[in-house]
Amino acid sequence: MKNALGREIPERIGSRVVEPYKGAFAVRNEGRKAARYQKSSWPADDKVLPSLDAAIDATGLSDGMTISFHHTFRDGDRVVNQVLAACAKRGIKKLRLFSTALFPTHAEVIDHIKSGVVSRIEGSMNGPIGHFVSQGGKLSEPAVLRSHGGRWRAIEAGDVEIDVAFIAAPYADPYGNATGIRGATPCGPISYSAVDAQYARKTVVVTNDLAPFPVYPMEIQQGWVDVVVEVDEIGDPENIASGTLRLTKSPTRLLIAQLTTDAVVHSGYFKDEFSFQGGAGGISLAVTKLLGDEMEKAGIVGSFGMGGGTRMLVDLLHRGLVRTILDGQAFDLDAIRSIREDDAHVMIDPGMYANFDSAGCSTYKLDTAFLGATEVDLDFNVNVNTHSDGLLLHGIGGHQDVASGASMTMITIPTLRGRIPVIVDSVTTVTSPGEVIDVIVTERGIAVNPKREDLSERFRSAGLPVRELADIKAEVDRLVQPVAKPIVGDEIIAAIEWRDGTIIDVVRKVEGFE
Amino acid sequence: MKNALGREIPERIGSRVVEPYKGAFAVRNEGRKAARYQKSSWPADDKVLPSLDAAIDATGLSDGMTISFHHTFRDGDRVVNQVLAACAKRGIKKLRLFSTALFPTHAEVIDHIKSGVVSRIEGSMNGPIGHFVSQGGKLSEPAVLRSHGGRWRAIEAGDVEIDVAFIAAPYADPYGNATGIRGATPCGPISYSAVDAQYARKTVVVTNDLAPFPVYPMEIQQGWVDVVVEVDEIGDPENIASGTLRLTKSPTRLLIAQLTTDAVVHSGYFKDEFSFQGGAGGISLAVTKLLGDEMEKAGIVGSFGMGGGTRMLVDLLHRGLVRTILDGQAFDLDAIRSIREDDAHVMIDPGMYANFDSAGCSTYKLDTAFLGATEVDLDFNVNVNTHSDGLLLHGIGGHQDVASGASMTMITIPTLRGRIPVIVDSVTTVTSPGEVIDVIVTERGIAVNPKREDLSERFRSAGLPVRELADIKAEVDRLVQPVAKPIVGDEIIAAIEWRDGTIIDVVRKVEGFE
Repeated sequence: MKNALGREIPERIGSRVVEPYKGAFAVRNEGRKAARYQKSSWPADDKVLPSLDAAIDATGLSDGMTISFHHTFRDGDRVVNQVLAACAKRGIKKLRLFSTALFPTHAEVIDHIKSGVVSRIEGSMNGPIGHFVSQGGKLSEPAVLRSHGGRWRAIEAGDVEIDVAFIAAPYADPYGNATGIRGATPCGPISYSAVDAQYARKTVVVTNDLAPFPVYPMEIQQGWVDVVVEVDEIGDPENIASGTLRLTKSPTRLLIAQLTTDAVVHSGYFKDEFSFQGGAGGISLAVTKLLGDEMEKAGIVGSFGMGGGTRMLVDLLHRGLVRTILDGQAFDLDAIRSIREDDAHVMIDPGMYANFDSAGCSTYKLDTAFLGATEVDLDFNVNVNTHSDGLLLHGIGGHQDVASGASMTMITIPTLRGRIPVIVDSVTTVTSPGEVIDVIVTERGIAVNPKREDLSERFRSAGLPVRELADIKAEVDRLVQPVAKPIVGDEIIAAIEWRDGTIIDVVRKVEGFE
Repeated sequence: MKNALGREIPERIGSRVVEPYKGAFAVRNEGRKAARYQKSSWPADDKVLPSLDAAIDATGLSDGMTISFHHTFRDGDRVVNQVLAACAKRGIKKLRLFSTALFPTHAEVIDHIKSGVVSRIEGSMNGPIGHFVSQGGKLSEPAVLRSHGGRWRAIEAGDVEIDVAFIAAPYADPYGNATGIRGATPCGPISYSAVDAQYARKTVVVTNDLAPFPVYPMEIQQGWVDVVVEVDEIGDPENIASGTLRLTKSPTRLLIAQLTTDAVVHSGYFKDEFSFQGGAGGISLAVTKLLGDEMEKAGIVGSFGMGGGTRMLVDLLHRGLVRTILDGQAFDLDAIRSIREDDAHVMIDPGMYANFDSAGCSTYKLDTAFLGATEVDLDFNVNVNTHSDGLLLHGIGGHQDVASGASMTMITIPTLRGRIPVIVDSVTTVTSPGEVIDVIVTERGIAVNPKREDLSERFRSAGLPVRELADIKAEVDRLVQPVAKPIVGDEIIAAIEWRDGTIIDVVRKVEGFE
């Protein structure tokens, strides 16, 4: 069958009956959420166990179960590998790995897939694991990728039942209260795991800094936690930035940042109480900085900037240019310090950020957002998951959540990466549909979604280089040789969920290249 | 049938099949909690409605439904009356009123009972409404009283389904984020309503101070809230103290406070990382102050003091005598200011405080607590709900939660109130069972529960006046004339739930006096 974007989707993917994507806001999920487990604990109970092995015993973790993790340490995480190694050693098989995201540091997951310890993955795969899955088909069911809000929704809706949640906690007490913003190795808020902790059959806090009761703030609460384990290492906070957190020095990217800033300033949204979401990419960081200067110049105070928190965003708060930062994850240590010190730097969880099945998402209050893409197409569809070579190399992050929430969603992209054009006829994979994308900013001009004639007019009046997306594409295509296209088989290796639980696209196995 | 305390309990109370009390920690509620409602909202939706009337329309509130409120403004609350008046005007009947607590200011509820607008009450009744219910029997089913933690549990367990939650919010934004610690009339944390907001079919935030998005901290989150209404008045913060918050000047009570402090100091619990719960009664406040001085003298730093927050407790934090305050409600404006300003003054919700069906309660981490009583008996059972005249005049508050949680629970009482003895053969109503009470401190001496021989020995070694409870009682009984006993009928007017959902006692209609 075809979904509302014309993407070919099977009626079943693995054991799952597919609901095809119908539109960004076409589905109202009604009825009830999943029911959480009752738990109990008596005053004298002691939750602290001496090892991950003891925790695995205590939780009854066994073949075929689903285990979950957060990604807040990103490429510095040390918990996923430790838990999987312990499971492998015990001969546990067929686990479903339900991490928010996996990174190159988790490459040993590939061996666990080969040996049958892991047979399913739901969550983002950044780098080698996605590469392996794209070419392999070694999983018993296709992977499922969800946005930050989509993952929260899926757990609450009962789409994914977690058997054991393992929560890397930089600072925790023996009763299970835990935070990511304090301790020996802070990684930023760990509230990604708050929904796991509440819904899992058993919840394990894994910390390298066990402190006396009560640890606060409590992204993870004692009432959700069954077991606390202290280990030597949970992650390297120097790695939370994953190398992405540098202001770009590329003239092309700086030009894009400048054009994006100019477009925001002339969009009609740029006034007191203005709000925006920045990201951790080089262009986003540069826009955050440039926009701050424009706000200062214009005497504008924004209502909120939304994180991932960065020092650029914190700087705007400290200069009084935004009243508030709403933050679900930290991209650098300055942001973590600011959460500790600045009352107006408010931690929110991904449910509050972007749960489709809630009475309101913070992303819906955004005036604008500047987001990246691996590809865009002439229908303004955006791909952030695969590359033009067909390989699944990135997660969704909050892309869908923010793109569909912001009043003006801007995609900031260079037209070429190496010799590969970024604007294509049809994206390899749709992550966010064209209907939620308003503006595409490139170094060759600004393309505006035809449904936003109001924006084109404002930009044109301001003398900004508004162009047809097709014209920009044609100009770029003349500069490069056609690239080798992937030979894609029939086998589906991953499903891309829209944030409402429908399937917006699938990723197929890459058999080779033309 | 008789429950584990020998109290006569019917097998059914109204429409409810009774589970009799089996012991303080005799029940493990297993399986699943109730499932919350799915909700949805699109970015352009506007939640703000112009009046309570419009909110009642929008929520579909009608005959026979359950409406809920928090009590954080206590006797200064203005929301319950406004909502009920609006319901009455529309001819809505047979409502179940599920407020955390009602106060004398809500006396017009009596008229709503008489006219059939309100036909059931679940929650505390302080003063005239309890008095009316005790003598009346005008409710279609007996009232149900629960502790703070017990009420949270009951909602999560699905024992009470809320149709519409009305949440008095001193500071709220148009998207429904709300707090009680800021705004024009702060009343302290409003997280009592967090569970209502999450479970109600429809949730209405009622504010007198509507501020731009985002309002923080978010005891109430946008994702739970369907409707926001601005009204002129929600409550008077000067009334949150309800006149209780004065250090006692009574020599008898000061003597009790001193004996209590001495007992704590010699209990074995008085050392670094010591923790305790104070209250807002005159004796508790005095103990908090005296204990702080003893901690300073001894060079002891406590791990946490638990609120209701008071300026006495805040003073201990500021003097460095406790590392943290865990606080679910504020008893004065100094406490509210401290929550805003002191990171270590941490807001917790009643679920975290005391939900029996969770993996851990903050009350379980208490070394000691000093609590009040209207009566105690020779089995160390405690009554806080009725007086010896049989009238239901008070709620449970956190009594059961704290009494069962603290390692050493102390009841601090004068032996006489007016001419009425406080120590009786058998309490009129059991609120907290003797098995969770360790020490009773009176101006005539300290009685220790026989199961705590360890404490008697410590107190005796320290030269404290340890006495048999029966001896104290006999001494008091010789001083007074027998008091008129209530003539109690068969009709049950209220059930007292133990915090696990079983019935620990019932309150019967008072027909007259001997």
